Amino acid sequence: MKTVVQVDFPFAGPFGEEMAEAMAGLAHSITEEPGFIWKIWTENPVDGEAGGVYLFEDETSARRYLEKHTARLESFGVTGIRGRIFAINQALTAIDHGPV
Amino acid sequence: MKTVVQVDFPFAGPFGEEMAEAMAGLAHSITEEPGFIWKIWTENPVDGEAGGVYLFEDETSARRYLEKHTARLESFGVTGIRGRIFAINQALTAIDHGPV
Repeated sequence: MKTVVQVDFPFAGPFGEEMAEAMAGLAHSITEEPGFIWKIWTENPVDGEAGGVYLFEDETSARRYLEKHTARLESFGVTGIRGRIFAINQALTAIDHGPV
Repeated sequence: MKTVVQVDFPFAGPFGEEMAEAMAGLAHSITEEPGFIWKIWTENPVDGEAGGVYLFEDETSARRYLEKHTARLESFGVTGIRGRIFAINQALTAIDHGPV
C-alpha cells in the first residue's frame, strides 16, 4: 500500500538555487531508491527548517528509506530530525485531488 | 508561489473507512478553500497520529488555511497539533517527479 514519508529538521541553509546545486546529485540518486515514486523538497528559510514529503510504493520501502536518509542527514551534522510514516486515507484523498 | 502545508497531530481514530465516512463533508469543503490545490490525508493507527499534506497556490492562502484548520481541530478537542508552512525547492522537486 502506498506510503507517505514526512521528514523535517532545523536547517540553516543553503536554500533555493544554492541548495539545488548542492543537492542535485542526491536528488537524482533518490529516484533509484526501491519503491520510490516522488519527493517534494520543502524549505523554510525564515523559520530555518527544511525537509521533504515522499511517496513510496509500500511501507517496507518507506521505512527502509527513512532509516537510510536519517543516517545520512546525521552524517551531514543535522540534528533534530523528525521523520514520520503515514498510510493514506484513499477515499478522502481522492475527494481532495491528492496526487497519490 | 506554491506552498506546502504540513499538519499532524495525535489521533485515536477513527481511521480508514470509518474516518472517510466521518470526514467526507469536510474533505469536500476543503476543495472550496481559497488557493487550495490538493490534500493527501495521512493516518497512522499504530503510532496514533493523523494529519495532512496540502498544496496551495500561494503562502497567504496556505497560512490562512492553516490558521482556520488548527482552530477547527482544536474545536474537535485535538491537542498537540503541529503545523508547518514550506516553500518548495522547484529544481530538486522536478528531478524527483514531485507533483507540484
